[in-house]
Amino acid sequence: MAATPFQGWLGKDESSVKGKMTWGDFEPKKWTEDDVDIEISHCGICGSDLHMLSSGWGPTPYPCVVGHEIIGKAVKVGKNVKHIKEGTRVGVGAEARSCLQRDCPDCSQNLENHCHRGVINTYGSVYPGDEGKSYGGYATHNRTHNRFVFNIPDGLDSADAAPMLCGGITVFSPLKNYGCGPGKTVGIVGVGGLGHFGVLFAKALGADKVVGISRKADKRDDVLKLGADKYISTDEDADWAKHNAQSLDLIVCTVSSEKMPLEGYLSLLKTKGTFIQVGAPDGGNLPPINAFTLLAGGIKVGGSAIGSPDEIAEMLQFAADKKVKPWIQKRSMKDANQAVIDMVAGKARYRYVLEN
Amino acid sequence: MAATPFQGWLGKDESSVKGKMTWGDFEPKKWTEDDVDIEISHCGICGSDLHMLSSGWGPTPYPCVVGHEIIGKAVKVGKNVKHIKEGTRVGVGAEARSCLQRDCPDCSQNLENHCHRGVINTYGSVYPGDEGKSYGGYATHNRTHNRFVFNIPDGLDSADAAPMLCGGITVFSPLKNYGCGPGKTVGIVGVGGLGHFGVLFAKALGADKVVGISRKADKRDDVLKLGADKYISTDEDADWAKHNAQSLDLIVCTVSSEKMPLEGYLSLLKTKGTFIQVGAPDGGNLPPINAFTLLAGGIKVGGSAIGSPDEIAEMLQFAADKKVKPWIQKRSMKDANQAVIDMVAGKARYRYVLEN
Repeated sequence: MAATPFQGWLGKDESSVKGKMTWGDFEPKKWTEDDVDIEISHCGICGSDLHMLSSGWGPTPYPCVVGHEIIGKAVKVGKNVKHIKEGTRVGVGAEARSCLQRDCPDCSQNLENHCHRGVINTYGSVYPGDEGKSYGGYATHNRTHNRFVFNIPDGLDSADAAPMLCGGITVFSPLKNYGCGPGKTVGIVGVGGLGHFGVLFAKALGADKVVGISRKADKRDDVLKLGADKYISTDEDADWAKHNAQSLDLIVCTVSSEKMPLEGYLSLLKTKGTFIQVGAPDGGNLPPINAFTLLAGGIKVGGSAIGSPDEIAEMLQFAADKKVKPWIQKRSMKDANQAVIDMVAGKARYRYVLEN
Repeated sequence: MAATPFQGWLGKDESSVKGKMTWGDFEPKKWTEDDVDIEISHCGICGSDLHMLSSGWGPTPYPCVVGHEIIGKAVKVGKNVKHIKEGTRVGVGAEARSCLQRDCPDCSQNLENHCHRGVINTYGSVYPGDEGKSYGGYATHNRTHNRFVFNIPDGLDSADAAPMLCGGITVFSPLKNYGCGPGKTVGIVGVGGLGHFGVLFAKALGADKVVGISRKADKRDDVLKLGADKYISTDEDADWAKHNAQSLDLIVCTVSSEKMPLEGYLSLLKTKGTFIQVGAPDGGNLPPINAFTLLAGGIKVGGSAIGSPDEIAEMLQFAADKKVKPWIQKRSMKDANQAVIDMVAGKARYRYVLEN
């Protein structure tokens, strides 16, 4: 192990989410000529990292290095790779590989994020055969298949670009796919890391009106400063569902709780409106949905998972062109354990980015 | 009451669904010059009629005359009515009026079936002011606002056209709105009155492949005869969900049970597929939905309610043009009580139509 330059913060059991990751060497996936090795400069801290460190979505194959909002320099580029040049600035999001077969109904349509034959996540996945495991970006280096390595446009700061690679694309994709733009009113439920990107991107996409929706009233000022036209506090605004009934064309929901007031959110939709869930609670079940709610409004409840490589590239260019500026707080990679503790405590405003 | 020509089968309490409706006079809504009086020749028996007779969807304002698949002759036409001529053959579906205001977000977009200001159902609704109640088609006559009265195209048999007005449009609308046509594979869950229309219309709309999905294997022959390319019996085909995973672009679900295997149905959808619920269980709650199911496939679960007046007119012409022929059984209006009992027992193949 000493020969490899790959080192990172290893989660070794469920307690790692409590600031118990340990720094050490790890063996990256076996090299192929389709891969790119990246010297990591930045990595955002995503809520998924916490679910994975704590085995919240099922047993984690420890040891695990989390982090899937990676920016760095391409230091080794496989012979089969065309679009990445050694020495350039690149990024990796939450997906590290899919089957990429021509006869795959998903990959053949550039829906690699939905590949049913085998998505490899950037961390915590086991590659087929003897290729090893995937390890994420709380580390010195990362190795990923080139299809999931992105050039970062000039004009995007590295620390700003990092959290776009999961947090940003997770909301950008459904906003784009479900018609956010001029003439539309859009709600963003949950204003944390994902939700703050939701407000920023919905405005940048030109929605007529963007409404931030979260529990506590104390986020109101921030949400309006982010560019939202309105804020609803579901804990503190009396009769919020009634007063805002049938006002939104599209809602993107970043909250992941089985106790969220889903029927209330759905009542905010206009006829034929769309509600897209992007957060997944531990356990997974959504609150019950009444058939009459769906029928009366002709509404839809859907899900969206990160975004495809093509969508990620599109988002990065869009963010550069529109000068989308996330609210981030830089933390030293050395202090990753404390940053995870602070993230669990809900202190991020709105995204921590680890810096090497 | 004796002066009025309106007579029908009155449900007077919850026992009426057990063959206890009684024939008698009723007072129709107060006449306005927007209305049309219809001498009823045919009325289909819809599952909704049973829910309403038994107060399954909430307390019914008895006495209630059910039936909202009405065909007959326009015998009195209000002065404000332009598109209906006295003496012609017309039909009425499940909706009798909406607000029809120009500033209504729904009615102004010809989405009268979703009017949030006040849909009046063809039976069991109370009109605002002193206009009275709405009464349905198990009767001699019906009075309905002209916007919800349809000319029946030549070439459509009256007994065939009747059940299209609710059963037909309830599946035609989501099939049309969610892209059923060439290149698509479509599933119809539940092959009863609505579902048999689903198979007929999905084929007529040109779907590449139509799959009927129901519990029992004994409907297989009928479903294939109706034109389906395949049949899945969820009670008797082992591992049906696994063997048919990711095979359908669109599912229209006519089943209304809290116990239906919803997660199994959803697993049949291709990536980005759509599941549209059109049935509503007594009580209303759908089985639990797992967020990961929605996210992994990027799928949507939506609802659809009957159809708009424009869609009903379109469907009737489409059915005439494509010679869509429903499977119906004619029953005498005199025997409505027995027909209701048989409908409750699930004996209809696939729609009873009462004849005066």
